[in-house]
Amino acid sequence: MLQKLPSMPERPERPRTFGLTLMLDKGLSVRQVEDVLEVAGPYIDLVKLGWGTALLTPCLERKLACYRAAGLPVYLGGTLFEAFYLRGELDAYCRLVERLGLTHVEVSDGVLTIPLEEKLRVIRRLAAHFVVLSEVGSKDAERILPPYRWVQQIQAELEAGSWKVICEARESGTVGLYRPSGEVRAGLVDEIVAMVPPAQLIFEAPRKVQQVWFIRHLGPNVNLGNIAPEEVLPLETLRRGLRADTLLDGYRQASSAS
Amino acid sequence: MLQKLPSMPERPERPRTFGLTLMLDKGLSVRQVEDVLEVAGPYIDLVKLGWGTALLTPCLERKLACYRAAGLPVYLGGTLFEAFYLRGELDAYCRLVERLGLTHVEVSDGVLTIPLEEKLRVIRRLAAHFVVLSEVGSKDAERILPPYRWVQQIQAELEAGSWKVICEARESGTVGLYRPSGEVRAGLVDEIVAMVPPAQLIFEAPRKVQQVWFIRHLGPNVNLGNIAPEEVLPLETLRRGLRADTLLDGYRQASSAS
Amino acid sequence: MLQKLPSMPERPERPRTFGLTLMLDKGLSVRQVEDVLEVAGPYIDLVKLGWGTALLTPCLERKLACYRAAGLPVYLGGTLFEAFYLRGELDAYCRLVERLGLTHVEVSDGVLTIPLEEKLRVIRRLAAHFVVLSEVGSKDAERILPPYRWVQQIQAELEAGSWKVICEARESGTVGLYRPSGEVRAGLVDEIVAMVPPAQLIFEAPRKVQQVWFIRHLGPNVNLGNIAPEEVLPLETLRRGLRADTLLDGYRQASSAS
Repeated sequence: MLQKLPSMPERPERPRTFGLTLMLDKGLSVRQVEDVLEVAGPYIDLVKLGWGTALLTPCLERKLACYRAAGLPVYLGGTLFEAFYLRGELDAYCRLVERLGLTHVEVSDGVLTIPLEEKLRVIRRLAAHFVVLSEVGSKDAERILPPYRWVQQIQAELEAGSWKVICEARESGTVGLYRPSGEVRAGLVDEIVAMVPPAQLIFEAPRKVQQVWFIRHLGPNVNLGNIAPEEVLPLETLRRGLRADTLLDGYRQASSAS
Repeated sequence: MLQKLPSMPERPERPRTFGLTLMLDKGLSVRQVEDVLEVAGPYIDLVKLGWGTALLTPCLERKLACYRAAGLPVYLGGTLFEAFYLRGELDAYCRLVERLGLTHVEVSDGVLTIPLEEKLRVIRRLAAHFVVLSEVGSKDAERILPPYRWVQQIQAELEAGSWKVICEARESGTVGLYRPSGEVRAGLVDEIVAMVPPAQLIFEAPRKVQQVWFIRHLGPNVNLGNIAPEEVLPLETLRRGLRADTLLDGYRQASSAS
Repeated sequence: MLQKLPSMPERPERPRTFGLTLMLDKGLSVRQVEDVLEVAGPYIDLVKLGWGTALLTPCLERKLACYRAAGLPVYLGGTLFEAFYLRGELDAYCRLVERLGLTHVEVSDGVLTIPLEEKLRVIRRLAAHFVVLSEVGSKDAERILPPYRWVQQIQAELEAGSWKVICEARESGTVGLYRPSGEVRAGLVDEIVAMVPPAQLIFEAPRKVQQVWFIRHLGPNVNLGNIAPEEVLPLETLRRGLRADTLLDGYRQASSAS
C-alpha cells in the first residue's frame, strides 16, 4: 500500500481464510492474467475458470502455470462438473482435474436436479482428494428455494466435507441470492448468516451495488465471488473504505474499533 | 479441445460456411488482438472494425497484418460505408478498402435512407470486386420495418450478389431484430427463416440472452454477429452446451441425433 | 487520420483547451496503459485514477511513468482527496500528490458535506501549487442540488482558482447531471451553460447515450469525463460524426459551417 491512512478497515494478508475474493476468469489470455496479477494480485484468493470455458481454451496449460506461479488456486466452474456428471463421467472429471494439477473442485447443482443425499455423497467422495467448494442455489430464476432449505443444504454440505459453500448468483447477479432485478434477497441472507458463520460462505456478488450491500452488512472481510478481473481492485477499494459507497462506513467502523 | 464429451453439439471447423461468429472490434490494440486470437482464435470467422473506428486507429496497418496472419477476413463497419456514400465518395471508399487489402465489404442503410433499387445497384457493383455483406434493418428504434419487407429486402440483396445478409441490432442489441428492451422480435425472426435459409443470414446478437435465444431456436450453428471480443469464447461454450443456459438442450439434441 | 472526409466536424489538436476527453483508469496494468495509448492516445487529454485505486496499485510508479512519457497529466480521484480530508490529513495528501510528481488535483465534496466557503479555501490553497479540477454535485442520488445552486457553486469555484469544474455523474452515470435511470437532466444543463462557458466545464458522461446528448447539444468539442479506456476511441468517432448517432448531425453542421 502506497500510504496507510488512519482509521481504515483492517484486511488480513494472503493466504487468507476469510475476506476472500474469488475472481471469475471467463477467457483471459496468458498476458491478461499477468496484467491482472500485476494490478490486483494481492487481492485475489482463488480463481474460477467460468463454466466450461476451460475445455475450449487453447492456451490453458500456460495460463494455469501463470496462476500457479502466483500461488493462486484455480478451479473449474460448477457447470463443467455438471456437464460431466450428467453424462455419468464423474471419474473422467476427476482425472481431468488431476491432470490439470488443480487442488480445488466445485460441486454444484445449478442446472441439474441432484437429490441432496446424492450430492452429499459426491462431496464426500471428492473431499477425499480435493478442496471442495459446493454451491447452493439454482441458476433458474423460477426455482426459488425457501431460506430454511438454503440453511439445511449449506449445513449438510459443510458436514459432508465442503471447505466453503458458495451462494449462487451467476455472472449476471440475477438469481439465487438476488431478485431478477439484481436486488439482494436481504431476508434470505439474514436467515443464512444467523445459522452459518459467514467465513464458511462465499457470496457471489458480480455487481458493485451487491458488493456494497454485503460489505455494509457483513463487514469488509465478507467472502465474495464471481468478481470480474477488472473489478478486483475496485472491490478492494470498497472493502478498505476508499470508494464513495463505503468511505464513511469504513471510517466510522475503524474509528470506533480503535 | 481439451477433452471431448459424449453427446455434444457438433461444430464445423474453420473455414466454416455456417456456424459463423463475427467479432466486433471497436478499438483493440495490436496486443489485444493477439490476446483474443490466443484465447478464442479458432472460434472467430470474421472481424468487423466497428463503424468509423478504422479511420481514427493509429495502429491500423499493424492490426490488419495481425488478423491477416491469423487468416481472418476483416471488414469496415457499415456506418463508414454510409459516411462515404452520403458525401458521394463511393469511389474513394472502394479505393480505401483496396488500399487496406480487405476482401470483404459491408453495404448498409442503417442511418441513411437509400432506395432499395439504388442499394441493389451498389451491391451489384461492389460484388464484382469484394465479398459483400449487406445489412437490413434501421439503427433507429422508431423506424420499424414490417416482416414481409425484411424478407423482400433480404431476398433481393442476396440475388444482387450479397454473400450473406446481416440482420441489424447495433452494439447495444436494442433495434432491428430486437425491442428497445433487448427482447427478440420472435415473430419477425420466424417469418424471415421461413423464407430464407439461416445459413445465408447473420443475426447480430450482442447480449448473452439473445445468443441463447438464437442457439435454442436455430441450433448451435446459427451465424451470429456483433460479438464482443471477450464474449467469443463464452459464446462458443453456449454453442457447445458447456454453459448453464444450453447445457441440457445441447445434450438432448446431440443424444437424440446420435 | 487515415483519410479525411469532406464536411467533418473540426477537432483541435492536443494539447487542447476545449474538446477534452478525460479517461477514467480504475486499475489498468502498465501494458494496458500502453495498449490504450497505442489505439487512442491522441484522443485523451487527462487521466483520472479512479477514487482510491492509486493507494492500492502495486505498479503505480511505472504506470505514472508511462502516462508521463505520453505527455498525459494524471490526477487522483476526488474520493481519495475526501478520504484524506475527512481525517484532517490535507497536508499528507499534498505531499502524496507531490511525491507522485502529479501536477493536477481534484477537490470534491461528493461524499462529505463541506461548506462552500471551506471548499473555496481549499481550492485557493491547492491552486497555488497545482492545477485544480473541482467537482460539483453529490454522489448521493437523494441529494439533489437546485440548478441555481449548481451555477453559484461553479462560478465561485472558478473564481477561487479552479481550472475547470467537473459536473458529477459517477462511473455509473446515475447521479448529479443524470436521473437514476441515466437520463440527462436537460433543464439543469441548459441553466448551467447559460451562465458558464462550456469550455470551463467538464461533464461526466460514462454512457454512450449521454455522450451523444452532449455532443448534439453542445457540439463535438464539449469536454467529457469519466470515459472508460475502451470507450475513448468510440467517443472520438461520435465527436467526428463517424458513428450512426452523430453521422448526420456532424455532416450537416460541418457542411453549413463551410
